[in-house]
This record gives sequence, C-alpha cells and structure tokens, in this order.
Amino acid sequence: MTDKIALVPATHTTPPARFSHGVRKGNILQVAGQVGFLPAEEGKPPTPAGPTLREQTLQTLANVKAVLEEGGSGWDDAMMIRVYLTDTGHFAEMNEIYDQYFEEQGLTAPPAARTTVYVGLPAGLLVEIDVLAVLG
Amino acid sequence: MTDKIALVPATHTTPPARFSHGVRKGNILQVAGQVGFLPAEEGKPPTPAGPTLREQTLQTLANVKAVLEEGGSGWDDAMMIRVYLTDTGHFAEMNEIYDQYFEEQGLTAPPAARTTVYVGLPAGLLVEIDVLAVLG
Amino acid sequence: MTDKIALVPATHTTPPARFSHGVRKGNILQVAGQVGFLPAEEGKPPTPAGPTLREQTLQTLANVKAVLEEGGSGWDDAMMIRVYLTDTGHFAEMNEIYDQYFEEQGLTAPPAARTTVYVGLPAGLLVEIDVLAVLG
Repeated sequence: MTDKIALVPATHTTPPARFSHGVRKGNILQVAGQVGFLPAEEGKPPTPAGPTLREQTLQTLANVKAVLEEGGSGWDDAMMIRVYLTDTGHFAEMNEIYDQYFEEQGLTAPPAARTTVYVGLPAGLLVEIDVLAVLG
Repeated sequence: MTDKIALVPATHTTPPARFSHGVRKGNILQVAGQVGFLPAEEGKPPTPAGPTLREQTLQTLANVKAVLEEGGSGWDDAMMIRVYLTDTGHFAEMNEIYDQYFEEQGLTAPPAARTTVYVGLPAGLLVEIDVLAVLG
Repeated sequence: MTDKIALVPATHTTPPARFSHGVRKGNILQVAGQVGFLPAEEGKPPTPAGPTLREQTLQTLANVKAVLEEGGSGWDDAMMIRVYLTDTGHFAEMNEIYDQYFEEQGLTAPPAARTTVYVGLPAGLLVEIDVLAVLG
C-alpha cells in the first residue's frame, strides 16, 4: 500500500472546497487547477497577481511549480500541462510567456505534452493550469 | 502484460459511443465523464436525476463511485477530480454539495486534486465529472 | 530513474510552443491535444484536413495514433480519450465517426474511457483530442 500524500505549499491560498492543491501517490503526482493568486495573506481573500495575462500566467506557473516541488518533483517530471484560457485571442501571447518561462527554467528533460482549450473561468481570472507528473 | 479491464456498473446507462464508463490497467483507473443520469431502465432513454444542480451533482458522484468500486477502488484512491460546470454562478453551490458529500464518505486519505472549468454540456445537463485514480 | 522521452512523429507540424506532441515515461504515455492538421509541408502553415467535422475528426485520430505508435503503443493501451468539440450539435455525428473508426481499428482490449465537452477552439478547428495511455 502506497500512501497518498496531500501537497499543500505553505504560501498557497486555502482551496475553496475539500480538495488538495496536489496529491502524490507512488510516482504519480497530480497538481490541481492553479490560478494566478498571490501567496495567501491572513484575513485577505485570494487575490490575482494582476489583471493581465502575463501577470496571471507567470503566477499560475509559479503556483504549479510550488506544488510540484512540495511533492519532491519539478517541471522535468511534468507529463501533461493543461492550459485553460478564456479567449482564443490570448493564445499567441500565452505561448510567448510560456516559452520564455520554460526557457528560463533550464530543464533537462523534453517538454511536457500540452492541451489548451478555451473555457469559462471565474470573473477576473484569465488562465488556469493543471499538471500530471510522473516521478523518475 | 497487464490486462486492461472495462468497468461497467450493471446499473449504468449504455454509453452513447464505443467507450467504457471506466477502465483499469494495473494500478491506474480512469473513470469516464459521468453525468447525473439515473440507473438505466430498459426501454427508457437516459434520464437525469432532476433539473437541479444538487440532484445532478449527487447522482454524478454516485455514478463515479460505482465505477471506482467496480474496479476495486474508491474515493480514497482518487487523484484528480475534473468537474465541468456550465455556469460560473454554480461554483459556490457545487462546492457546498461537494464538501458535504465528501464529508459523509468518511475518507481516510487526503482529498484528491481538482480542476473546475465552465464548458458547454448537452442540453439539460449542468455538471459532468471524471476521475483519475491510482490504486494502493 | 526512468527517462522521459519526447514523441514527435516526423510528419507532424511543429507545436506552436515549447511542448511535445507526446511524452512517455516508463509505462505512462501522454498525447498532447491533437487537431485535424494534415502532415506538415515545408514552408506551409499548419492546414486542417478540411472544413468538416468528419475530415477533422479522422485526421485528429490519425494524428493521435501516430504519437501513440511513436511511443511503441497504440489504441489498445489508451485509458482516457478527451474529446473537445465546439458545438453540442456535433455530438451525434462525432460519435458515429468515432465508432466507425474504432470498429475499423480491430482492437482487442476494451475501449478507453472518454469525456466530451464543448469549448472554444482556434478559428476553423472543430475538434481536439488528447489521450492518456498505459503501456502493457
């Protein structure tokens, strides 16, 4: 029996329901849908890093990374990155931000697979990302 | 070679295409997108449990659970729960139903990760849920 | 340490960002969201197989299959097939195309699980599909 472990970075906002920001069981790690919320502040509601796609995408990626690292993992283990945008007009800009971010991460494994679709998100949020990782 | 096994609860409606309500291979179990259809009745088309978000969410969760159990698993093994809603205005109510449901399940493992996005669904359906589980 | 391998069929168009059409690590294989683009032609932008749901769905399934095969896998290993459509009115026709396609594949394992939701996609694209596979 392998333990299922909740991955809860200390700086993350409390989930709005009974779910974990991430879970790991054996070599499988799943990051829940992350959005561009800044680190939690006591007594303040979750607050996006800013109104722009750039601010929110970079904060979202940082939030995903924190969950991966909480599980002893990192971007090199990512198998699937699901990107949810609200507007097809954001695709080119998101790709630019995405590519620059991952270039800066200095990864050694090949990039993860990805699916990008356009959905509704809560008001003010422009991007949500979740990740499936397999540890080495 | 590990066998891939179809998980088809006896009470489930027949899928509208060539897919399985769930599959298990080794310790990986995937539940297909479940909706709030009542148990199948011979000669009747699939029928939602009711028009409300509450009725449909609870039936959907019951349908997911039946597939997990058909595979010798359960909610404690769930790694990722994907919730598809049609209306951002349903988020708070769904969370309330979700939390109450899982509280009643008396789980011992930490809660699964989750992503909730807002999409289109067939007319009359307000919620769809699929689940990835890793058996212990 | 298991290697993570990028799966890049020679005929596929270059991804629009730093992601892989597929990755495999150990017995887990993830295919990125595929659309109905024809095989790449030097100096030409990615071009859909045609404007119809049938043309795009069949090309998309062929593109997914190429990635699976690049990883030493195939449809029999598919656990979860995620189908993204843009219009609920396409559900019946997609199911017909899907069923006929898989009938012709002559699979021996039970069909994969599936979730179909309705989202926005880039202009001109009617369907996108990604797949999680577990090798035997």
